[in-house]
Amino acid sequence: MDDLTLIAVVSIITAGFTTAVGTMFPAIGEGRALSKALSSIAQQPDSSSTITRTLFVGLAMIESTAIYCFVLSMILIFANPFWNHFIQ
Amino acid sequence: MDDLTLIAVVSIITAGFTTAVGTMFPAIGEGRALSKALSSIAQQPDSSSTITRTLFVGLAMIESTAIYCFVLSMILIFANPFWNHFIQ
Amino acid sequence: MDDLTLIAVVSIITAGFTTAVGTMFPAIGEGRALSKALSSIAQQPDSSSTITRTLFVGLAMIESTAIYCFVLSMILIFANPFWNHFIQ
Amino acid sequence: MDDLTLIAVVSIITAGFTTAVGTMFPAIGEGRALSKALSSIAQQPDSSSTITRTLFVGLAMIESTAIYCFVLSMILIFANPFWNHFIQ
Amino acid sequence: MDDLTLIAVVSIITAGFTTAVGTMFPAIGEGRALSKALSSIAQQPDSSSTITRTLFVGLAMIESTAIYCFVLSMILIFANPFWNHFIQ
Amino acid sequence: MDDLTLIAVVSIITAGFTTAVGTMFPAIGEGRALSKALSSIAQQPDSSSTITRTLFVGLAMIESTAIYCFVLSMILIFANPFWNHFIQ
Amino acid sequence: MDDLTLIAVVSIITAGFTTAVGTMFPAIGEGRALSKALSSIAQQPDSSSTITRTLFVGLAMIESTAIYCFVLSMILIFANPFWNHFIQ
Amino acid sequence: MDDLTLIAVVSIITAGFTTAVGTMFPAIGEGRALSKALSSIAQQPDSSSTITRTLFVGLAMIESTAIYCFVLSMILIFANPFWNHFIQ
Amino acid sequence: MDDLTLIAVVSIITAGFTTAVGTMFPAIGEGRALSKALSSIAQQPDSSSTITRTLFVGLAMIESTAIYCFVLSMILIFANPFWNHFIQ
Amino acid sequence: MDDLTLIAVVSIITAGFTTAVGTMFPAIGEGRALSKALSSIAQQPDSSSTITRTLFVGLAMIESTAIYCFVLSMILIFANPFWNHFIQ
Amino acid sequence: MDDLTLIAVVSIITAGFTTAVGTMFPAIGEGRALSKALSSIAQQPDSSSTITRTLFVGLAMIESTAIYCFVLSMILIFANPFWNHFIQ
Amino acid sequence: MDDLTLIAVVSIITAGFTTAVGTMFPAIGEGRALSKALSSIAQQPDSSSTITRTLFVGLAMIESTAIYCFVLSMILIFANPFWNHFIQ
Amino acid sequence: MDDLTLIAVVSIITAGFTTAVGTMFPAIGEGRALSKALSSIAQQPDSSSTITRTLFVGLAMIESTAIYCFVLSMILIFANPFWNHFIQ
Amino acid sequence: MDDLTLIAVVSIITAGFTTAVGTMFPAIGEGRALSKALSSIAQQPDSSSTITRTLFVGLAMIESTAIYCFVLSMILIFANPFWNHFIQ
Repeated sequence: MDDLTLIAVVSIITAGFTTAVGTMFPAIGEGRALSKALSSIAQQPDSSSTITRTLFVGLAMIESTAIYCFVLSMILIFANPFWNHFIQ
Repeated sequence: MDDLTLIAVVSIITAGFTTAVGTMFPAIGEGRALSKALSSIAQQPDSSSTITRTLFVGLAMIESTAIYCFVLSMILIFANPFWNHFIQ
Repeated sequence: MDDLTLIAVVSIITAGFTTAVGTMFPAIGEGRALSKALSSIAQQPDSSSTITRTLFVGLAMIESTAIYCFVLSMILIFANPFWNHFIQ
Repeated sequence: MDDLTLIAVVSIITAGFTTAVGTMFPAIGEGRALSKALSSIAQQPDSSSTITRTLFVGLAMIESTAIYCFVLSMILIFANPFWNHFIQ
Repeated sequence: MDDLTLIAVVSIITAGFTTAVGTMFPAIGEGRALSKALSSIAQQPDSSSTITRTLFVGLAMIESTAIYCFVLSMILIFANPFWNHFIQ
Repeated sequence: MDDLTLIAVVSIITAGFTTAVGTMFPAIGEGRALSKALSSIAQQPDSSSTITRTLFVGLAMIESTAIYCFVLSMILIFANPFWNHFIQ
Repeated sequence: MDDLTLIAVVSIITAGFTTAVGTMFPAIGEGRALSKALSSIAQQPDSSSTITRTLFVGLAMIESTAIYCFVLSMILIFANPFWNHFIQ
Repeated sequence: MDDLTLIAVVSIITAGFTTAVGTMFPAIGEGRALSKALSSIAQQPDSSSTITRTLFVGLAMIESTAIYCFVLSMILIFANPFWNHFIQ
Repeated sequence: MDDLTLIAVVSIITAGFTTAVGTMFPAIGEGRALSKALSSIAQQPDSSSTITRTLFVGLAMIESTAIYCFVLSMILIFANPFWNHFIQ
Repeated sequence: MDDLTLIAVVSIITAGFTTAVGTMFPAIGEGRALSKALSSIAQQPDSSSTITRTLFVGLAMIESTAIYCFVLSMILIFANPFWNHFIQ
Repeated sequence: MDDLTLIAVVSIITAGFTTAVGTMFPAIGEGRALSKALSSIAQQPDSSSTITRTLFVGLAMIESTAIYCFVLSMILIFANPFWNHFIQ
Repeated sequence: MDDLTLIAVVSIITAGFTTAVGTMFPAIGEGRALSKALSSIAQQPDSSSTITRTLFVGLAMIESTAIYCFVLSMILIFANPFWNHFIQ
Repeated sequence: MDDLTLIAVVSIITAGFTTAVGTMFPAIGEGRALSKALSSIAQQPDSSSTITRTLFVGLAMIESTAIYCFVLSMILIFANPFWNHFIQ
Repeated sequence: MDDLTLIAVVSIITAGFTTAVGTMFPAIGEGRALSKALSSIAQQPDSSSTITRTLFVGLAMIESTAIYCFVLSMILIFANPFWNHFIQ
């Protein structure tokens, strides 16, 4: 197994692991926030616009942690500086 | 085991792992949100349209984390840049 | 163990793992949503049609994450591009 | 250990693992839904027909995830394409 | 260790694992459903016949997932196609 | 280590594992059902005969999953087809 | 390490593991049932005879799963068919 | 490492493991039952004799599972049939 | 590494493990019982003598499981029959 | 595998692991805070501006722990001092 | 690595492990008891002397399990019989 | 692999692990504190200034544990005394 | 690797492990006790002196388990009898 | 790998592990205490000074366990007696 293969193998595994693990908990967090938002709307329909707005800003913030992981995976697959170094 | 085989093997394992693990928690999160949505409708039937709309937007957002994983798996199986590099 | 065997072995294991693990949590999520739907119907029988409709749309959404995994397994067993490459 | 044996061994292990793990959580999910159905009937006997109907449709949906796993195991044992390839 | 022994060994281990793991959670699910059934009868004695009937249908459904595992184990021990292939 | 020894060793380990693991959760499930039965009797003494009857039928059902495991262990120790094959 | 030693070693380990693991959860289950029985007696002293009777029948049922494991261990230590086979 | 040493080593490890693991959960179960007994006495001082009696019978039953493990350990250390066989 | 060393090493490890693991859960169980005792005294000061007496008998019972483990460790360190056999 | 490759491999794995693991719990924490914020708005609509402001300051603070991890990963991939040392 | 070193190494590791693991749960148990004592005092200030006395007796009992572990560690480090045997 | 490489590799892994693991629980702790602060403001708007002030002091204290880890990582990467020793 | 190095290595690892693991749960226990103390003061301000005094005595008791671990680590690093034996 | 390198490697790993693991639970404990303090202030604004004072004394006590770990890490990195011994 030469070096290039090793870099490729490791990049694939790390990309998959990072995306898989890193998107787990944002999904939980978003599910929790969403479910509480729904019961808050049911409890106080008059504030539904404030609730929905705060919800979406917050979801975006949580989603950002998942996106960090996805971005890192994409870097590893399509713009990997170590791979580029060895390929030259 | 030559390099090409190794890349293939690793891609298969990573694709399976990523999809399997990465879809676990979105399913939990969606189940939680859905169940709270149903009890909110039961509690406040008049707001059912607002609740349902917020629910589906939120579910889509949670689903997106599962889709990141599925997309990554598809890339690894059908558009793997490392595989393409070695195949040439 | 030649390369072809290895690809086959890895495909079998990954297919089984992906289906087994990937269908675990959707089942939990669906069970939770279903159980809350039933208690919501008991609490508010008049909204049972709205509840049931939202339930089934939501279940389909959760089921979709299980289906991603099952589809991936089927691809690995019956339409595996790496297997096809080595078989030629 | 020749290749045929390896395929057989891996198929057996994967079939067992998939069925064992894949039927765990549907059983939990069904138990949860069933238990909530029973308490809902006790709370609202008049809706028992609606509840029972929704329950069985939902149970079937949850059961489907267990069946995916069982089907996959059966494919691995009795209709394994890799095994068939090597046997020829 | 020749191939026949290996198949035997793997079949024994897998059969035991599948039965042991696969019957764990149905037992939990049934226990949960049963316990809720008993408290529902205590709360609403008039519906005890409906509750008992729904309970047993549901238990049968949960039991089915345990039976999948037991059936698979029996197939592996007494009707194993791979074993039969090598024995011939 | 010849083949016969290996079969024996594996049978012993699997029998122990299967019984140990497979009886864990039925015990939990039965404990939960029993505890709820007792509080139901305390809450509704008039239904104690119905509750007790349902309890014992349900316990038998849960116990059955433990018995699957114990039966499998006994088969492995005293009526193991693979052992019989090699002994001949 | 000859075969006889191996059988002995494996039997010892399996016996210990089976007893240790297999008695864990019955203890939990019995503790739970017992604790609920005590609070039920405190809540409804008039039914204490019914509660105590049901409790002890149920405890015996739960204890049975622990006994399966202990019996299996005793078989492995004092009446092990594989050991007897090799000793002859 | 000759056979006798191996038997000794394995017996020591198994004895320790069995006692350590096997006494964990009875301690939890007894703690739970005891704590509920105390709150039941506080709630219904008139039934304290019935509660205490039931408590001690139950604790003895739970303790029995811990004793199974301790007995097994003592057998392994002081009356080990395999050790005796090899020592002769 | 001769046999005597091995016995010594294994005895040390097992003694430490047994004491460490075996005293974990009694501590939890006692903490739970103690905490409930305190709140029971606060709730029903008149029964404080009954509660305290039952508490200490129960704590002694729970402590006994920890003592089994400590005794076993002491046996392994200071009265180990296997060590004595080899030392002679 | 020469030293340069090793540094590259380790950097890739560590970067992925750090981002994946380090963003998990901030996502949970943010989800919890967000969900409580929504229910607080529903409960006290008049304080919604104070709540929202405190929420976003707090979220930024939690997000900072995720950013520590992301920054560390970026350092490892694009400004790794060890890599730079070996590359010269 | 000669025998003396091995004994030393194993004693160090076991001493550390035993103290670290064995003091974990007493700390939890004491924290739980202490916290309940404080709320009991707040609820029933008149019984504070009884509560405090019972608390400290109980804490001492729980602390005893941690002390078993610490004592064992000290024995292993400063009065190890196996070490003494080899040193002579 | 020479010594310098080893030090580099270990420093990278440890830095990543420390930051990833060490920032997990502060994030949870801060999320919990923040969420409780928000509900306290909703419950007692008049104390919002006291609550907010206490919150930020406390958050800083929790954040400090995450910063210990981040500082340690930075030391390992940019001011590692062992690396400096070997580099000279 | 000579013996002295091994003793040093093992002492370092054990010291770190013992301190890290052994201080985890005291921190949890103290946090729980402290949080309950604060709510008790809020509930019964008149008893705040009794509560605070009991709290600090109890915290000291819990802290003692953490100190056992820290002391052991210091012994291993600065007053290790095995190290001293080999150094002479 | 000579001895000096080994000591360095082990010190780095242990320092990182100790800080990372040892600061986890204090963060949780502090978060719990802080969150309860905030709700106590909201519930009883008049006692806010007592609560805040008790809170900070308690936080310092919890923080001390994290500091033990950080101190140990610093000792291992900057004042390691074993390293100093070998360096001379």
